[in-house]
Amino acid sequence: MDLNIIKQLAQKSDSKILLCVLDGLGGLPGSKGRTELEDASTPNLDKLAHKSDLGLSIPVERGITPGSGPGHLALFGYDPIEYQIGRGALEATGIEFKLEDNDLAARGNFCTVDNNGNITDRRAGRISTDICENLTAKIETAINIDGYEVFVKPVKEHRFILVIRGEGLSDQITETDPQSVGVPPKNASALIASAENTANIVNSAVKQAVELIKEEIQANSLTLRGWSHKPEMPHFANTWGVKAAAIAAYPMYKGLADIVGMDVLQTGTTIDEEIDTLENSWDHYDFFFLHYKNTDTYGEDGNFPEKKAAIEYYDRLVPRLTALNPDVIVVTGDHSSPTMMAAHSWHPVPLLISSQYVRKNKHSGFSEQECSSGNLGMLYAKNLMTLAFAHAGRLNKYGA
Amino acid sequence: MDLNIIKQLAQKSDSKILLCVLDGLGGLPGSKGRTELEDASTPNLDKLAHKSDLGLSIPVERGITPGSGPGHLALFGYDPIEYQIGRGALEATGIEFKLEDNDLAARGNFCTVDNNGNITDRRAGRISTDICENLTAKIETAINIDGYEVFVKPVKEHRFILVIRGEGLSDQITETDPQSVGVPPKNASALIASAENTANIVNSAVKQAVELIKEEIQANSLTLRGWSHKPEMPHFANTWGVKAAAIAAYPMYKGLADIVGMDVLQTGTTIDEEIDTLENSWDHYDFFFLHYKNTDTYGEDGNFPEKKAAIEYYDRLVPRLTALNPDVIVVTGDHSSPTMMAAHSWHPVPLLISSQYVRKNKHSGFSEQECSSGNLGMLYAKNLMTLAFAHAGRLNKYGA
Repeated sequence: MDLNIIKQLAQKSDSKILLCVLDGLGGLPGSKGRTELEDASTPNLDKLAHKSDLGLSIPVERGITPGSGPGHLALFGYDPIEYQIGRGALEATGIEFKLEDNDLAARGNFCTVDNNGNITDRRAGRISTDICENLTAKIETAINIDGYEVFVKPVKEHRFILVIRGEGLSDQITETDPQSVGVPPKNASALIASAENTANIVNSAVKQAVELIKEEIQANSLTLRGWSHKPEMPHFANTWGVKAAAIAAYPMYKGLADIVGMDVLQTGTTIDEEIDTLENSWDHYDFFFLHYKNTDTYGEDGNFPEKKAAIEYYDRLVPRLTALNPDVIVVTGDHSSPTMMAAHSWHPVPLLISSQYVRKNKHSGFSEQECSSGNLGMLYAKNLMTLAFAHAGRLNKYGA
Repeated sequence: MDLNIIKQLAQKSDSKILLCVLDGLGGLPGSKGRTELEDASTPNLDKLAHKSDLGLSIPVERGITPGSGPGHLALFGYDPIEYQIGRGALEATGIEFKLEDNDLAARGNFCTVDNNGNITDRRAGRISTDICENLTAKIETAINIDGYEVFVKPVKEHRFILVIRGEGLSDQITETDPQSVGVPPKNASALIASAENTANIVNSAVKQAVELIKEEIQANSLTLRGWSHKPEMPHFANTWGVKAAAIAAYPMYKGLADIVGMDVLQTGTTIDEEIDTLENSWDHYDFFFLHYKNTDTYGEDGNFPEKKAAIEYYDRLVPRLTALNPDVIVVTGDHSSPTMMAAHSWHPVPLLISSQYVRKNKHSGFSEQECSSGNLGMLYAKNLMTLAFAHAGRLNKYGA
């Protein structure tokens, strides 16, 4: 739904909405013919399902496997095709680097080059994060560009971000990563005339950086790609007329929530601690995004028993959620992560919406099978927020 | 579906289509766990359902509660986001004021102002319609704008419409309603340069009107909003290649049918009289829109037994409809109006399409539950006409 129309329809209410995202929730049948969710014992989610509408959520489009960015943006009500976050900005978000309006961010790879300057390993043998931290710290303090600030921050292994801060930077420059070995890293060049200065700044920064690390053994050069500014998107809390809070243990999800305009609450590293935070902040917000990472972690690991156990662990915490009496509870995932694929997938994701305004249902619990014959049918994740806010009595009638 | 494509695909046929709209048909479970429709005894609709495809219709979008305007436009095949009817035009439609091409319409409120001209009550204590009629008649005869005609017609209580008729009027002017008390009504001002003249005309008309009523006790001023022209949309009958008739007891639905280009037939005030009209005009049209209001009225009243009774009453009339042997019968609503909400809602609406070209089904009758597992699945209301005309053999193949 057009977010400008949503903004016009949004109305005040005392109701509270809890969006529970079990990352990578959806699965595929394992050896026993049941998905991780179907095989798991989930008495509390099943009980909740009886008072809910069920359905299946298509994250982006049929057959499209989303990354965490588009997966969550869609859940937050943004069309994930219309609103894209550049690779550099997403990587910055993932390490909670707070981009400012005049920042230009790139995702960097440390690599190795031979005596002729040609790339021999684009990922420098996936150097340890420790080494990456040393290299980035060294580079960041040494780069000197008149009138600009340059940040170089480690991400993981060979990956880092480079952010240039200053006036008039353009993302219309080429990447320096040639995406192959046996050739040297490229210079950045302007794609439009007004980006000349940016290209010069980047090339100067890269030259200074390489000068500093060229004698290093593990990684003696670098490449940059995914040039992007801080993404611009309608502010979530303003659009929907709520005070919105995000509770997530992992930086990526905190960052995504921050980008769209939710308050990111301080919390711990476990789902138990996240729910402590939820309980403690319950009175201060209307909308909560509660993120649970483990389902995806074990899905991507291809570990069926552990993904199943992660779902069962979550289920045991559900009474703490329902005890808060949210007007609307949504339980779903940002995408599927079937253990048999050990990766994200395109499969529609189980979805549950609990409120007092649901129709009767015949389902016996919360599972891919039950959701596939649920009242909600199959819907695009981007429409989920509209439905949740309708159930919360927070959307006025459209037209007279 | 793009209506330009429909126009190319439309082909002649002797078939007849009957679109039965039970306003606000959809519901939510009441105390017995059944919706109004599920609780009602509807042997004739159930019988019809056996020879039908069932499904659920989404009026506008998931979670969006439509007003009558977008609800019906969608049923008539218009994208309710693309085709919007301005507030002034809709209000004119609602009292069967026939807008012409160079009319500019506004919805007006009578209000009260204090000695300083500041608004004290934006609705003038919801004056009776009688008083409104007196005030509008007095104003209409007295306003004098050189070269323009001004109509001022009562709607209900404090509400009226003001229509200016003449060349070159623009809807790009501001509203005079400040939407708050303690401040005076605003002057209209032009939003674009070419609307200056319109703003002057409006301000002059308002000044003359206020001069006439300023000594009145119940309402001594007025505000205007929702400036709009007669909506422009593809002509229904021309697009689909039919002679189309609308049979509705209530002005709003007659007006909506008129706007899209159906012939609005003279009828009575009851559904029985509407069906008399249907029978009498059966040979003269290919397409009939038959509107039934009572389901919505009792839904909005929150009266479960009466909404259920209204459905049962309609059901007893169904044999008169089937006796006409329409090639296609569609039974649905423009939106849901669950009695437990006493309001329009976003919930998908039960839908039945009866024709000789339906697939086998397993349903036991016509209800939200049966429709949720029907052959048609869930579809957007704007796509319903295409389906109905296809079933009537009135749409050619698309592409070779």
